[in-house]
Amino acid sequence: MAKKLNVTPLHDRVIVKADAAEEKTAGGIIIPDTAKEKPQRGTVVAVGAGKKDEPVTVKAGDTVLYGKYSGTEITIDGQELLIMRESDILAII
Amino acid sequence: MAKKLNVTPLHDRVIVKADAAEEKTAGGIIIPDTAKEKPQRGTVVAVGAGKKDEPVTVKAGDTVLYGKYSGTEITIDGQELLIMRESDILAII
Amino acid sequence: MAKKLNVTPLHDRVIVKADAAEEKTAGGIIIPDTAKEKPQRGTVVAVGAGKKDEPVTVKAGDTVLYGKYSGTEITIDGQELLIMRESDILAII
Amino acid sequence: MAKKLNVTPLHDRVIVKADAAEEKTAGGIIIPDTAKEKPQRGTVVAVGAGKKDEPVTVKAGDTVLYGKYSGTEITIDGQELLIMRESDILAII
Amino acid sequence: MAKKLNVTPLHDRVIVKADAAEEKTAGGIIIPDTAKEKPQRGTVVAVGAGKKDEPVTVKAGDTVLYGKYSGTEITIDGQELLIMRESDILAII
Amino acid sequence: MAKKLNVTPLHDRVIVKADAAEEKTAGGIIIPDTAKEKPQRGTVVAVGAGKKDEPVTVKAGDTVLYGKYSGTEITIDGQELLIMRESDILAII
Amino acid sequence: MAKKLNVTPLHDRVIVKADAAEEKTAGGIIIPDTAKEKPQRGTVVAVGAGKKDEPVTVKAGDTVLYGKYSGTEITIDGQELLIMRESDILAII
Repeated sequence: MAKKLNVTPLHDRVIVKADAAEEKTAGGIIIPDTAKEKPQRGTVVAVGAGKKDEPVTVKAGDTVLYGKYSGTEITIDGQELLIMRESDILAII
Repeated sequence: MAKKLNVTPLHDRVIVKADAAEEKTAGGIIIPDTAKEKPQRGTVVAVGAGKKDEPVTVKAGDTVLYGKYSGTEITIDGQELLIMRESDILAII
Repeated sequence: MAKKLNVTPLHDRVIVKADAAEEKTAGGIIIPDTAKEKPQRGTVVAVGAGKKDEPVTVKAGDTVLYGKYSGTEITIDGQELLIMRESDILAII
Repeated sequence: MAKKLNVTPLHDRVIVKADAAEEKTAGGIIIPDTAKEKPQRGTVVAVGAGKKDEPVTVKAGDTVLYGKYSGTEITIDGQELLIMRESDILAII
Repeated sequence: MAKKLNVTPLHDRVIVKADAAEEKTAGGIIIPDTAKEKPQRGTVVAVGAGKKDEPVTVKAGDTVLYGKYSGTEITIDGQELLIMRESDILAII
Repeated sequence: MAKKLNVTPLHDRVIVKADAAEEKTAGGIIIPDTAKEKPQRGTVVAVGAGKKDEPVTVKAGDTVLYGKYSGTEITIDGQELLIMRESDILAII
Repeated sequence: MAKKLNVTPLHDRVIVKADAAEEKTAGGIIIPDTAKEKPQRGTVVAVGAGKKDEPVTVKAGDTVLYGKYSGTEITIDGQELLIMRESDILAII
């Protein structure tokens, strides 16, 4: 899991560390770049306090799926992270 | 039915496994690709907890119709699935 | 009337079977294709349970008028039908 | 006034029979087509039951003004009518 | 002031009679057409009953300013008038 | 301050008299036109009564900042003024 | 921290003083302009009173991240600042 960050996302935003793209299939066959999966998998590293009457559902440590183009890239303490709204997260794995 | 997945869709999202496109009509006649039906048929494999005051109506195991271009393709445990909002589902069969 | 279907539209959706386009006027004169009426007439064959605080007004068996381009074509049990939101229906005849 | 129709508009829709365009000015001078007035005048022939907490204000028999491009043309019992939302009606004369 | 009309605007609509464009400045100098003021000045001649929980603020007889392109031109009893939503009115003079 | 006007803005609108653009920097150096500041500074001369449950926050006499392209130009009593919604005002100085 | 300003942002707006872009990486290597981080870091210098039922969460002195193109540039007392809505702020560091 990504280490604890010194950052608090605002409201319904969450910060996610993207998994490295899987270079191999389960069976160990190297797949070319164009066959990589579309939605990204990542780990939540920080969550906001939610909106007034709607707390954030995901929590730090959750592995999540999110759209490939979701969020804004930020670099904190040398780590490349993504900050997105919780509504950009599709599912918890 | 698709096997139980280790994935929880967020809020009002559902995960659907698309039926294979029907290659034959009821009478067994092979139909060309351009005559395939527009809305897709599939089986719900996982549903989210719903939005604050609106639980999800469909449940795992339901056969549903949804727009051909609804949802985002995801691959989980080697299965190709679709994750969409419940509002993309047209009807339960 | 269209026969009972094994399909439940979701929420505020309704399924309509379009009337065959009227080839003749009341007086029996055949009218060319370009003079056919714009809004379609059809019969409701199934309705959803409505939205949270707004039940669906039309019911199975109603003859309704709806915009020519409303709804999505679906084929169920060999019948060509339309699934649309109730708000696409203009009037009950 | 237009005769009673066998049609019930849905929700906040109303059916209007357009007046014939006035071919003459008050003083009896024939005006060319390009000088005809923009908003149309017509007679309400049927009204819906309104939306949940907002009944329809106009009633059958009212003479109303509405935007020239408002509504959808429908033909019922041989009459050419317009079905529009009540919000498309500008004023009652 | 414009004379009493036999017209009732619907809901939050108001009918305004535009002032003739001022051809002279206060000091009596004739100004060319391109220097005429942008927002129009006019007199309210009729107001609607307002929306459900929001009565109309302006009243017949008020001199008002409104955007140059606000409203729809209507001709009633030979008078050229404008019918607009109250939200198109900028200020009462 | 601009003198009291005989105008009442409607609802959440306010009338502002723009300050003359500052031709000199604090240190007295004349700056060319292209370097002038973007948001405008002005003085509130009249405010509306607010919207139903939201009174207007600024008051006549306040010096305010607002976006360069906010509002509509109006000329009242020979003064060139701007009428804008309060939401176009960025800050009170 | 930026010095106290004589400015009150309206409603949910905040004024931020952008940090100088970091010219060096943590390890002291000078990075070219095109590699600079996308979201900006800055210090809140003033906050509005919030919207009717939603006070502003950030406070003067907070170091915040915000989108590179958020806000409007303003110059107050010779300082170049940004005024933006709180919703443009991504996180507090």
